[in-house]
Amino acid sequence: MTEIKEERPIILITNDDGITAPGIKSLVNAVKDLGDVIVVAPDKPQSGMGHAITIGVPLRLNRVKDIFDGAEAWQTNGTPVDCVKLAVDKILHRKPDICLSGINHGANHSINVIYSGTMSAAMEASIESIPSIGFSLLDYSIEADFTAAEHYVHKIVKSVLGKKFEKHFLLNVNIPSMPLELMNGIKVCRQAYAKYDEDFDERQDPNGRKYYWLTGQFVNFDEGEDTDVWALEHNYVSVVPVQFDLTNYTLKKELEKNWDIL
Amino acid sequence: MTEIKEERPIILITNDDGITAPGIKSLVNAVKDLGDVIVVAPDKPQSGMGHAITIGVPLRLNRVKDIFDGAEAWQTNGTPVDCVKLAVDKILHRKPDICLSGINHGANHSINVIYSGTMSAAMEASIESIPSIGFSLLDYSIEADFTAAEHYVHKIVKSVLGKKFEKHFLLNVNIPSMPLELMNGIKVCRQAYAKYDEDFDERQDPNGRKYYWLTGQFVNFDEGEDTDVWALEHNYVSVVPVQFDLTNYTLKKELEKNWDIL
Repeated sequence: MTEIKEERPIILITNDDGITAPGIKSLVNAVKDLGDVIVVAPDKPQSGMGHAITIGVPLRLNRVKDIFDGAEAWQTNGTPVDCVKLAVDKILHRKPDICLSGINHGANHSINVIYSGTMSAAMEASIESIPSIGFSLLDYSIEADFTAAEHYVHKIVKSVLGKKFEKHFLLNVNIPSMPLELMNGIKVCRQAYAKYDEDFDERQDPNGRKYYWLTGQFVNFDEGEDTDVWALEHNYVSVVPVQFDLTNYTLKKELEKNWDIL
Repeated sequence: MTEIKEERPIILITNDDGITAPGIKSLVNAVKDLGDVIVVAPDKPQSGMGHAITIGVPLRLNRVKDIFDGAEAWQTNGTPVDCVKLAVDKILHRKPDICLSGINHGANHSINVIYSGTMSAAMEASIESIPSIGFSLLDYSIEADFTAAEHYVHKIVKSVLGKKFEKHFLLNVNIPSMPLELMNGIKVCRQAYAKYDEDFDERQDPNGRKYYWLTGQFVNFDEGEDTDVWALEHNYVSVVPVQFDLTNYTLKKELEKNWDIL
Protein backbone atom coordinates (compact mmCIF):
# COMPACT_ATOMS: atom_id res chain seq x y z
CA MET A 1 0.00 0.00 0.00
CA THR A 2 1.71 3.17 -1.22
CA GLU A 3 0.10 6.61 -1.52
CA ILE A 4 -0.40 7.74 -5.14
CA LYS A 5 -0.84 11.23 -6.57
CA GLU A 6 -4.29 12.76 -6.85
CA GLU A 7 -6.01 12.80 -10.26
CA ARG A 8 -9.60 12.57 -11.52
CA PRO A 9 -10.32 8.86 -11.84
CA ILE A 10 -12.95 7.14 -13.97
CA ILE A 11 -15.47 5.36 -11.75
CA LEU A 12 -17.62 2.63 -13.33
CA ILE A 13 -20.84 1.91 -11.44
CA THR A 14 -23.20 -1.02 -11.87
CA ASN A 15 -25.64 -3.03 -9.74
CA ASP A 16 -28.05 -5.97 -9.85
CA ASP A 17 -31.26 -4.26 -8.71
CA GLY A 18 -31.53 -2.43 -12.04
CA ILE A 19 -30.77 1.10 -13.17
CA THR A 20 -33.85 2.64 -11.53
CA ALA A 21 -33.16 1.24 -8.03
CA PRO A 22 -32.64 3.88 -5.32
CA GLY A 23 -29.44 2.12 -4.19
CA ILE A 24 -27.51 2.86 -7.38
CA LYS A 25 -28.58 6.52 -7.19
CA SER A 26 -27.15 6.64 -3.66
CA LEU A 27 -23.90 5.10 -4.88
CA VAL A 28 -23.55 7.76 -7.61
CA ASN A 29 -24.32 10.51 -5.07
CA ALA A 30 -21.79 9.13 -2.63
CA VAL A 31 -18.82 9.16 -5.01
CA LYS A 32 -19.47 11.71 -7.77
CA ASP A 33 -17.08 14.23 -6.21
CA LEU A 34 -14.29 11.63 -6.34
CA GLY A 35 -14.15 11.13 -10.13
CA ASP A 36 -15.97 10.95 -13.46
CA VAL A 37 -18.83 8.52 -13.00
CA ILE A 38 -20.21 6.23 -15.75
CA VAL A 39 -23.18 4.01 -14.93
CA VAL A 40 -23.79 0.82 -16.94
CA ALA A 41 -26.56 -1.18 -15.28
CA PRO A 42 -29.23 -3.77 -16.06
CA ASP A 43 -32.56 -2.49 -17.39
CA LYS A 44 -34.42 -4.70 -14.89
CA PRO A 45 -33.76 -6.39 -11.52
CA GLN A 46 -31.15 -9.19 -11.74
CA SER A 47 -30.86 -10.26 -8.11
CA GLY A 48 -29.62 -13.78 -7.55
CA MET A 49 -28.05 -13.96 -11.01
CA GLY A 50 -24.66 -14.94 -9.60
CA HIS A 51 -21.89 -14.83 -12.17
CA ALA A 52 -24.28 -15.45 -15.09
CA ILE A 53 -23.35 -14.16 -18.53
CA THR A 54 -25.61 -13.82 -21.57
CA ILE A 55 -24.74 -16.13 -24.44
CA GLY A 56 -28.12 -17.28 -25.78
CA VAL A 57 -29.69 -13.93 -26.71
CA PRO A 58 -28.21 -10.76 -28.22
CA LEU A 59 -27.25 -7.95 -25.86
CA ARG A 60 -28.69 -4.45 -26.18
CA LEU A 61 -26.96 -1.34 -24.86
CA ASN A 62 -28.73 2.01 -24.76
CA ARG A 63 -27.91 5.46 -23.42
CA VAL A 64 -30.32 6.71 -20.73
CA LYS A 65 -30.59 10.47 -20.23
CA ASP A 66 -31.57 12.51 -17.17
CA ILE A 67 -31.52 9.62 -14.73
CA PHE A 68 -28.48 10.52 -12.61
CA ASP A 69 -27.29 13.91 -11.50
CA GLY A 70 -23.66 14.13 -12.56
CA ALA A 71 -23.17 10.76 -14.27
CA GLU A 72 -23.47 9.41 -17.81
CA ALA A 73 -25.73 6.33 -17.85
CA TRP A 74 -26.34 3.27 -20.05
CA GLN A 75 -28.69 0.32 -19.61
CA THR A 76 -28.46 -3.22 -20.96
CA ASN A 77 -30.71 -6.28 -21.11
CA GLY A 78 -27.77 -8.31 -19.79
CA THR A 79 -26.64 -9.50 -16.39
CA PRO A 80 -24.49 -7.46 -13.96
CA VAL A 81 -21.40 -9.32 -15.27
CA ASP A 82 -22.36 -8.42 -18.87
CA CYS A 83 -22.61 -4.75 -17.79
CA VAL A 84 -18.95 -4.70 -16.73
CA LYS A 85 -17.78 -6.41 -19.94
CA LEU A 86 -19.85 -4.06 -22.15
CA ALA A 87 -18.73 -0.97 -20.23
CA VAL A 88 -15.04 -1.74 -20.71
CA ASP A 89 -15.26 -2.91 -24.33
CA LYS A 90 -18.01 -0.76 -25.85
CA ILE A 91 -18.31 2.43 -23.79
CA LEU A 92 -15.07 3.29 -22.01
CA HIS A 93 -12.70 1.53 -24.45
CA ARG A 94 -10.30 1.35 -21.49
CA LYS A 95 -10.31 0.03 -17.94
CA PRO A 96 -11.89 2.36 -15.38
CA ASP A 97 -9.80 3.24 -12.32
CA ILE A 98 -12.31 1.54 -10.07
CA CYS A 99 -15.56 -0.40 -10.39
CA LEU A 100 -18.30 -0.05 -7.77
CA SER A 101 -21.38 -2.24 -7.58
CA GLY A 102 -24.56 -1.57 -5.61
CA ILE A 103 -25.64 -0.24 -3.27
CA ASN A 104 -27.56 -3.50 -3.07
CA HIS A 105 -30.97 -3.51 -1.41
CA GLY A 106 -30.30 -6.35 1.04
CA ALA A 107 -27.38 -8.21 2.61
CA ASN A 108 -24.64 -9.95 0.63
CA HIS A 109 -22.58 -11.24 3.54
CA SER A 110 -21.39 -14.82 4.16
CA ILE A 111 -22.21 -17.35 1.41
CA ASN A 112 -24.40 -14.79 -0.39
CA VAL A 113 -21.27 -13.45 -2.08
CA ILE A 114 -21.63 -16.45 -4.42
CA TYR A 115 -25.28 -15.88 -5.43
CA SER A 116 -25.09 -12.11 -5.59
CA GLY A 117 -25.20 -10.31 -8.92
CA THR A 118 -23.81 -7.24 -7.12
CA MET A 119 -20.69 -9.10 -6.02
CA SER A 120 -20.34 -11.01 -9.29
CA ALA A 121 -20.15 -7.74 -11.23
CA ALA A 122 -17.46 -6.54 -8.83
CA MET A 123 -15.62 -9.87 -9.16
CA GLU A 124 -15.75 -9.65 -12.96
CA ALA A 125 -13.99 -6.28 -12.76
CA SER A 126 -11.43 -7.74 -10.38
CA ILE A 127 -10.71 -10.61 -12.80
CA GLU A 128 -10.00 -7.87 -15.37
CA SER A 129 -7.50 -6.29 -12.94
CA ILE A 130 -9.83 -3.38 -12.11
CA PRO A 131 -9.93 -2.60 -8.36
CA SER A 132 -13.50 -3.22 -7.35
CA ILE A 133 -15.93 -2.98 -4.44
CA GLY A 134 -19.46 -4.29 -3.95
CA PHE A 135 -21.69 -2.45 -1.46
CA SER A 136 -24.84 -3.78 0.18
CA LEU A 137 -27.21 -2.32 2.75
CA LEU A 138 -28.96 -4.67 5.18
CA ASP A 139 -32.42 -3.47 4.15
CA TYR A 140 -34.37 -5.05 1.26
CA SER A 141 -36.95 -2.26 1.21
CA ILE A 142 -37.29 0.03 -1.79
CA GLU A 143 -37.63 2.89 0.73
CA ALA A 144 -34.40 1.97 2.56
CA ASP A 145 -32.49 4.89 4.09
CA PHE A 146 -29.04 5.07 2.44
CA THR A 147 -27.81 8.14 4.37
CA ALA A 148 -25.34 6.35 6.63
CA ALA A 149 -24.37 3.97 3.81
CA GLU A 150 -23.37 6.92 1.61
CA HIS A 151 -21.07 8.18 4.36
CA TYR A 152 -19.17 4.87 4.53
CA VAL A 153 -19.14 4.38 0.75
CA HIS A 154 -17.48 7.77 0.33
CA LYS A 155 -14.94 7.06 3.05
CA ILE A 156 -13.97 3.64 1.67
CA VAL A 157 -13.84 4.62 -2.02
CA LYS A 158 -11.81 7.77 -1.29
CA SER A 159 -9.32 5.71 0.68
CA VAL A 160 -9.02 2.96 -1.96
CA LEU A 161 -8.59 5.47 -4.81
CA GLY A 162 -5.74 7.07 -2.88
CA LYS A 163 -3.72 3.85 -2.57
CA LYS A 164 -2.10 1.27 -4.79
CA PHE A 165 -3.37 -2.18 -3.87
CA GLU A 166 -2.79 -5.56 -5.53
CA LYS A 167 -4.14 -5.75 -9.09
CA HIS A 168 -7.10 -8.03 -8.31
CA PHE A 169 -8.22 -5.92 -5.32
CA LEU A 170 -11.83 -6.78 -4.44
CA LEU A 171 -13.94 -5.99 -1.38
CA ASN A 172 -17.37 -7.13 -0.26
CA VAL A 173 -18.78 -4.34 1.92
CA ASN A 174 -22.01 -4.79 3.91
CA ILE A 175 -23.54 -1.91 5.84
CA PRO A 176 -25.97 -2.24 8.77
CA SER A 177 -29.28 -0.43 8.38
CA MET A 178 -29.16 2.11 11.20
CA PRO A 179 -28.37 5.76 11.87
CA LEU A 180 -24.70 6.71 11.48
CA GLU A 181 -24.25 7.59 15.16
CA LEU A 182 -25.12 4.03 16.25
CA MET A 183 -22.45 2.41 14.04
CA ASN A 184 -19.13 1.24 15.44
CA GLY A 185 -16.99 1.83 12.33
CA ILE A 186 -15.40 -0.52 9.80
CA LYS A 187 -14.20 -4.08 10.49
CA VAL A 188 -12.16 -6.25 8.10
CA CYS A 189 -13.58 -9.80 8.26
CA ARG A 190 -13.59 -13.24 6.76
CA GLN A 191 -16.66 -14.70 5.01
CA ALA A 192 -18.88 -16.51 7.54
CA TYR A 193 -20.14 -20.03 6.93
CA ALA A 194 -23.75 -18.95 7.18
CA LYS A 195 -26.38 -19.67 4.58
CA TYR A 196 -30.05 -19.98 3.78
CA ASP A 197 -31.66 -23.19 4.90
CA GLU A 198 -33.89 -23.56 1.87
CA ASP A 199 -37.44 -24.50 1.64
CA PHE A 200 -39.87 -24.37 -1.27
CA ASP A 201 -43.32 -22.92 -0.95
CA GLU A 202 -45.49 -25.37 -2.94
CA ARG A 203 -48.60 -23.99 -4.68
CA GLN A 204 -51.09 -24.95 -7.39
CA ASP A 205 -51.80 -22.85 -10.47
CA PRO A 206 -55.42 -22.38 -11.71
CA ASN A 207 -54.92 -25.47 -13.93
CA GLY A 208 -54.07 -27.64 -10.93
CA ARG A 209 -50.37 -27.93 -11.76
CA LYS A 210 -47.83 -27.57 -8.96
CA TYR A 211 -45.24 -24.81 -8.81
CA TYR A 212 -42.64 -23.71 -6.26
CA TRP A 213 -41.20 -20.51 -4.84
CA LEU A 214 -37.74 -20.65 -3.33
CA THR A 215 -37.82 -19.49 0.27
CA GLY A 216 -35.83 -20.21 3.42
CA GLN A 217 -34.38 -19.12 6.73
CA PHE A 218 -30.95 -17.65 7.28
CA VAL A 219 -28.81 -19.81 9.59
CA ASN A 220 -25.34 -18.96 10.93
CA PHE A 221 -23.20 -22.08 11.44
CA ASP A 222 -20.08 -20.05 12.21
CA GLU A 223 -19.26 -19.02 15.78
CA GLY A 224 -16.17 -16.99 14.86
CA GLU A 225 -15.91 -13.39 16.01
CA ASP A 226 -13.86 -12.53 12.92
CA THR A 227 -16.71 -13.03 10.40
CA ASP A 228 -18.83 -10.56 8.47
CA VAL A 229 -22.00 -11.85 10.14
CA TRP A 230 -20.53 -11.22 13.60
CA ALA A 231 -19.37 -7.72 12.63
CA LEU A 232 -22.79 -6.76 11.24
CA GLU A 233 -24.53 -8.10 14.36
CA HIS A 234 -22.28 -5.81 16.37
CA ASN A 235 -23.09 -2.70 14.31
CA TYR A 236 -19.90 -2.63 12.25
CA VAL A 237 -19.61 -2.10 8.52
CA SER A 238 -18.13 -5.45 7.39
CA VAL A 239 -15.38 -5.52 4.75
CA VAL A 240 -14.42 -8.95 3.38
CA PRO A 241 -11.47 -8.98 0.93
CA VAL A 242 -12.48 -11.43 -1.81
CA GLN A 243 -10.52 -13.57 -4.27
CA PHE A 244 -11.47 -15.58 -7.36
CA ASP A 245 -8.90 -18.36 -6.99
CA LEU A 246 -11.26 -21.06 -5.70
CA THR A 247 -8.55 -23.73 -5.32
CA ASN A 248 -8.82 -25.59 -2.02
CA TYR A 249 -5.08 -25.87 -1.32
CA THR A 250 -5.52 -27.95 1.84
CA LEU A 251 -7.49 -30.61 0.00
CA LYS A 252 -5.04 -30.37 -2.93
CA LYS A 253 -2.16 -31.33 -0.63
CA GLU A 254 -4.13 -34.18 0.93
CA LEU A 255 -5.09 -35.63 -2.46
CA GLU A 256 -1.56 -35.33 -3.83
CA LYS A 257 -0.26 -37.20 -0.81
CA ASN A 258 -2.85 -39.94 -0.35
CA TRP A 259 -5.08 -40.43 -3.37
CA ASP A 260 -4.48 -43.93 -4.69
CA ILE A 261 -5.81 -43.34 -8.21
CA LEU A 262 -3.14 -40.78 -9.13
CA MET B 1 -9.07 -40.18 4.29
CA THR B 2 -10.31 -43.45 5.79
CA GLU B 3 -11.86 -46.34 3.88
CA ILE B 4 -15.60 -46.80 4.56
CA LYS B 5 -17.76 -49.87 4.23
CA GLU B 6 -19.49 -50.59 0.96
CA GLU B 7 -23.19 -49.80 0.57
CA ARG B 8 -25.47 -48.69 -2.27
CA PRO B 9 -25.22 -44.90 -2.29
CA ILE B 10 -27.69 -42.38 -3.69
CA ILE B 11 -26.12 -40.46 -6.56
CA LEU B 12 -27.71 -37.15 -7.59
CA ILE B 13 -26.88 -36.07 -11.14
CA THR B 14 -27.45 -32.68 -12.74
CA ASN B 15 -25.90 -30.52 -15.47
CA ASP B 16 -26.18 -27.18 -17.23
CA ASP B 17 -26.54 -28.33 -20.84
CA GLY B 18 -30.07 -29.58 -20.17
CA ILE B 19 -31.59 -33.00 -19.55
CA THR B 20 -31.40 -34.10 -23.21
CA ALA B 21 -27.66 -33.38 -23.63
CA PRO B 22 -25.52 -36.45 -24.49
CA GLY B 23 -23.07 -35.53 -21.70
CA ILE B 24 -25.54 -36.19 -18.88
CA LYS B 25 -26.45 -39.54 -20.44
CA SER B 26 -22.76 -40.47 -20.42
CA LEU B 27 -22.49 -39.45 -16.77
CA VAL B 28 -25.43 -41.72 -15.86
CA ASN B 29 -23.91 -44.59 -17.86
CA ALA B 30 -20.54 -44.12 -16.19
CA VAL B 31 -21.78 -44.41 -12.60
CA LYS B 32 -25.05 -46.37 -12.59
CA ASP B 33 -23.34 -49.51 -11.30
CA LEU B 34 -22.02 -47.55 -8.32
CA GLY B 35 -25.37 -46.57 -6.75
CA ASP B 36 -28.99 -45.54 -7.20
CA VAL B 37 -29.01 -42.65 -9.65
CA ILE B 38 -31.53 -39.78 -9.62
CA VAL B 39 -31.30 -37.12 -12.34
CA VAL B 40 -32.70 -33.63 -11.73
CA ALA B 41 -31.67 -31.36 -14.58
CA PRO B 42 -32.74 -28.18 -16.41
CA ASP B 43 -35.34 -28.57 -19.20
CA LYS B 44 -33.16 -26.40 -21.49
CA PRO B 45 -29.50 -25.39 -21.84
CA GLN B 46 -28.27 -23.18 -18.98
CA SER B 47 -24.61 -22.71 -19.84
CA GLY B 48 -22.97 -19.62 -18.41
CA MET B 49 -25.62 -19.28 -15.70
CA GLY B 50 -23.00 -19.19 -12.95
CA HIS B 51 -24.48 -19.52 -9.47
CA ALA B 52 -27.83 -18.03 -10.53
CA ILE B 53 -30.97 -18.97 -8.63
CA THR B 54 -34.58 -18.40 -9.67
CA ILE B 55 -36.48 -15.95 -7.52
CA GLY B 56 -38.58 -13.96 -9.98
CA VAL B 57 -40.63 -16.75 -11.56
CA PRO B 58 -42.19 -19.91 -10.11
CA LEU B 59 -40.27 -23.16 -10.47
CA ARG B 60 -41.75 -26.21 -12.17
CA LEU B 61 -40.60 -29.76 -11.49
CA ASN B 62 -41.79 -32.67 -13.64
CA ARG B 63 -40.98 -36.36 -13.84
CA VAL B 64 -39.56 -37.47 -17.22
CA LYS B 65 -39.93 -41.13 -18.16
CA ASP B 66 -37.86 -43.34 -20.46
CA ILE B 67 -35.02 -40.90 -20.89
CA PHE B 68 -32.24 -42.68 -18.98
CA ASP B 69 -31.51 -46.35 -18.76
CA GLY B 70 -31.33 -47.15 -15.06
CA ALA B 71 -32.06 -43.75 -13.52
CA GLU B 72 -35.15 -41.88 -12.32
CA ALA B 73 -35.31 -38.42 -13.96
CA TRP B 74 -36.90 -35.02 -13.31
CA GLN B 75 -36.67 -31.76 -15.21
CA THR B 76 -37.13 -28.18 -14.02
CA ASN B 77 -37.37 -24.74 -15.60
CA GLY B 78 -34.77 -23.55 -13.09
CA THR B 79 -31.02 -23.12 -13.09
CA PRO B 80 -28.49 -25.88 -12.27
CA VAL B 81 -28.32 -24.54 -8.69
CA ASP B 82 -32.13 -24.69 -8.41
CA CYS B 83 -31.95 -28.34 -9.53
CA VAL B 84 -29.80 -29.28 -6.56
CA LYS B 85 -32.01 -27.42 -4.10
CA LEU B 86 -35.21 -28.96 -5.54
CA ALA B 87 -33.70 -32.46 -5.63
CA VAL B 88 -32.79 -32.39 -1.95
CA ASP B 89 -35.95 -30.69 -0.69
CA LYS B 90 -38.70 -32.02 -2.98
CA ILE B 91 -37.55 -35.34 -4.44
CA LEU B 92 -35.02 -37.08 -2.22
CA HIS B 93 -36.13 -35.52 1.09
CA ARG B 94 -32.57 -36.25 2.26
CA LYS B 95 -29.05 -35.49 1.17
CA PRO B 96 -27.67 -37.77 -1.55
CA ASP B 97 -24.34 -39.48 -0.83
CA ILE B 98 -22.74 -37.64 -3.71
CA CYS B 99 -23.72 -35.05 -6.31
CA LEU B 100 -22.27 -35.21 -9.83
CA SER B 101 -22.66 -32.48 -12.43
CA GLY B 102 -22.00 -32.78 -16.17
CA ILE B 103 -20.49 -34.17 -18.19
CA ASN B 104 -20.26 -30.66 -19.58
CA HIS B 105 -19.86 -30.17 -23.31
CA GLY B 106 -16.80 -27.90 -23.16
CA ALA B 107 -14.02 -26.91 -20.78
CA ASN B 108 -14.59 -25.51 -17.28
CA HIS B 109 -10.96 -25.10 -16.25
CA SER B 110 -9.27 -21.96 -14.89
CA ILE B 111 -11.55 -18.97 -14.29
CA ASN B 112 -14.46 -20.73 -16.03
CA VAL B 113 -15.28 -22.42 -12.72
CA ILE B 114 -16.93 -19.10 -11.79
CA TYR B 115 -19.19 -18.76 -14.88
CA SER B 116 -20.04 -22.44 -15.17
CA GLY B 117 -23.51 -23.70 -14.33
CA THR B 118 -22.01 -27.20 -14.13
CA MET B 119 -19.59 -26.20 -11.38
CA SER B 120 -22.11 -23.94 -9.63
CA ALA B 121 -24.49 -26.89 -9.22
CA ALA B 122 -21.64 -28.94 -7.75
CA MET B 123 -20.67 -26.05 -5.47
CA GLU B 124 -24.27 -25.69 -4.27
CA ALA B 125 -24.19 -29.34 -3.18
CA SER B 126 -20.85 -28.78 -1.47
CA ILE B 127 -22.26 -25.80 0.46
CA GLU B 128 -24.96 -28.23 1.65
CA SER B 129 -22.22 -30.62 2.86
CA ILE B 130 -22.82 -33.08 0.01
CA PRO B 131 -19.55 -34.37 -1.54
CA SER B 132 -19.66 -33.17 -5.10
CA ILE B 133 -17.83 -33.33 -8.42
CA GLY B 134 -18.27 -31.41 -11.66
CA PHE B 135 -17.07 -33.09 -14.88
CA SER B 136 -16.31 -31.38 -18.19
CA LEU B 137 -15.02 -32.68 -21.51
CA LEU B 138 -12.90 -30.39 -23.66
CA ASP B 139 -15.20 -30.69 -26.64
CA TYR B 140 -18.18 -28.36 -27.20
CA SER B 141 -19.65 -30.52 -29.94
CA ILE B 142 -23.00 -32.25 -29.52
CA GLU B 143 -21.38 -35.33 -31.13
CA ALA B 144 -18.45 -35.34 -28.68
CA ASP B 145 -17.00 -38.77 -27.87
CA PHE B 146 -17.42 -39.43 -24.14
CA THR B 147 -15.86 -42.92 -24.12
CA ALA B 148 -12.60 -42.00 -22.41
CA ALA B 149 -14.39 -39.49 -20.17
CA GLU B 150 -16.70 -42.25 -18.87
CA HIS B 151 -13.67 -44.32 -17.92
CA TYR B 152 -12.22 -41.53 -15.76
CA VAL B 153 -15.59 -40.53 -14.30
CA HIS B 154 -16.13 -44.10 -13.10
CA LYS B 155 -12.63 -44.31 -11.64
CA ILE B 156 -12.89 -40.99 -9.77
CA VAL B 157 -16.45 -41.46 -8.46
CA LYS B 158 -15.75 -45.03 -7.29
CA SER B 159 -12.70 -43.81 -5.40
CA VAL B 160 -14.47 -40.83 -3.79
CA LEU B 161 -17.47 -42.96 -2.72
CA GLY B 162 -15.08 -45.36 -1.01
CA LYS B 163 -13.49 -42.70 1.19
CA LYS B 164 -14.45 -40.21 3.85
CA PHE B 165 -13.33 -36.74 2.81
CA GLU B 166 -13.99 -33.35 4.43
CA LYS B 167 -17.66 -32.38 4.51
CA HIS B 168 -17.45 -29.68 1.82
CA PHE B 169 -15.50 -31.92 -0.59
CA LEU B 170 -15.71 -30.49 -4.10
CA LEU B 171 -13.73 -31.25 -7.26
CA ASN B 172 -13.59 -29.60 -10.67
CA VAL B 173 -12.61 -32.32 -13.15
CA ASN B 174 -11.74 -31.52 -16.78
CA ILE B 175 -11.05 -34.27 -19.29
CA PRO B 176 -9.09 -33.88 -22.54
CA SER B 177 -10.90 -34.90 -25.70
CA MET B 178 -8.78 -37.78 -26.99
CA PRO B 179 -8.63 -41.58 -27.01
CA LEU B 180 -7.98 -43.19 -23.63
CA GLU B 181 -4.63 -44.65 -24.65
CA LEU B 182 -3.20 -41.17 -25.33
CA MET B 183 -4.02 -39.84 -21.84
CA ASN B 184 -1.39 -39.56 -19.12
CA GLY B 185 -3.66 -40.14 -16.11
CA ILE B 186 -5.01 -37.83 -13.40
CA LYS B 187 -3.25 -34.74 -12.04
CA VAL B 188 -4.35 -32.70 -9.00
CA CYS B 189 -3.95 -29.01 -9.86
CA ARG B 190 -4.63 -25.45 -8.84
CA GLN B 191 -6.95 -23.17 -10.84
CA ALA B 192 -4.96 -21.32 -13.54
CA TYR B 193 -5.23 -17.57 -13.99
CA ALA B 194 -6.40 -17.92 -17.57
CA LYS B 195 -9.52 -16.31 -18.97
CA TYR B 196 -11.39 -15.15 -22.02
CA ASP B 197 -10.22 -11.85 -23.45
CA GLU B 198 -13.68 -10.61 -24.36
CA ASP B 199 -14.86 -8.94 -27.43
CA PHE B 200 -18.38 -8.16 -28.63
CA ASP B 201 -19.53 -8.91 -32.14
CA GLU B 202 -21.57 -5.82 -33.08
CA ARG B 203 -24.48 -6.27 -35.54
CA GLN B 204 -27.59 -4.44 -36.71
CA ASP B 205 -31.09 -5.90 -36.53
CA PRO B 206 -33.54 -5.47 -39.48
CA ASN B 207 -34.79 -2.26 -37.81
CA GLY B 208 -31.31 -0.74 -37.81
CA ARG B 209 -30.79 -1.11 -34.04
CA LYS B 210 -27.43 -2.37 -32.76
CA TYR B 211 -27.00 -5.57 -30.81
CA TYR B 212 -24.03 -7.52 -29.48
CA TRP B 213 -22.90 -11.12 -29.12
CA LEU B 214 -20.34 -11.91 -26.45
CA THR B 215 -17.29 -13.55 -27.99
CA GLY B 216 -13.58 -13.69 -27.19
CA GLN B 217 -10.28 -15.52 -27.21
CA PHE B 218 -8.93 -17.71 -24.44
CA VAL B 219 -5.67 -16.40 -22.99
CA ASN B 220 -3.47 -18.11 -20.39
CA PHE B 221 -1.66 -15.59 -18.16
CA ASP B 222 -0.35 -18.30 -15.84
CA GLU B 223 3.00 -19.97 -16.52
CA GLY B 224 2.78 -22.43 -13.62
CA GLU B 225 3.19 -26.14 -14.29
CA ASP B 226 0.84 -26.96 -11.41
CA THR B 227 -2.32 -25.56 -13.07
CA ASP B 228 -5.31 -27.23 -14.67
CA VAL B 229 -4.55 -25.57 -18.01
CA TRP B 230 -1.00 -26.96 -17.99
CA ALA B 231 -2.23 -30.45 -17.08
CA LEU B 232 -4.83 -30.49 -19.86
CA GLU B 233 -2.26 -29.28 -22.41
CA HIS B 234 -0.14 -32.25 -21.38
CA ASN B 235 -2.94 -34.79 -21.82
CA TYR B 236 -3.79 -35.22 -18.14
CA VAL B 237 -7.26 -35.27 -16.60
CA SER B 238 -7.13 -32.17 -14.36
CA VAL B 239 -8.64 -32.28 -10.86
CA VAL B 240 -8.90 -28.96 -9.00
CA PRO B 241 -10.18 -29.19 -5.40
CA VAL B 242 -12.55 -26.22 -5.00
CA GLN B 243 -13.73 -24.20 -2.00
CA PHE B 244 -16.47 -21.61 -1.49
CA ASP B 245 -14.73 -19.50 1.14
CA LEU B 246 -13.78 -16.57 -1.11
CA THR B 247 -11.97 -14.61 1.62
CA ASN B 248 -8.63 -13.22 0.45
CA TYR B 249 -6.70 -13.82 3.69
CA THR B 250 -3.50 -12.17 2.44
CA LEU B 251 -5.30 -8.92 1.67
CA LYS B 252 -7.25 -9.24 4.93
CA LYS B 253 -4.00 -9.22 6.91
CA GLU B 254 -2.62 -6.29 4.94
CA LEU B 255 -5.76 -4.20 5.47
CA GLU B 256 -5.92 -5.03 9.17
CA LYS B 257 -2.32 -3.89 9.57
CA ASN B 258 -2.19 -0.78 7.39
CA TRP B 259 -5.62 0.57 6.47
CA ASP B 260 -5.91 4.04 7.99
CA ILE B 261 -9.74 4.23 7.96
CA LEU B 262 -10.23 1.34 10.39
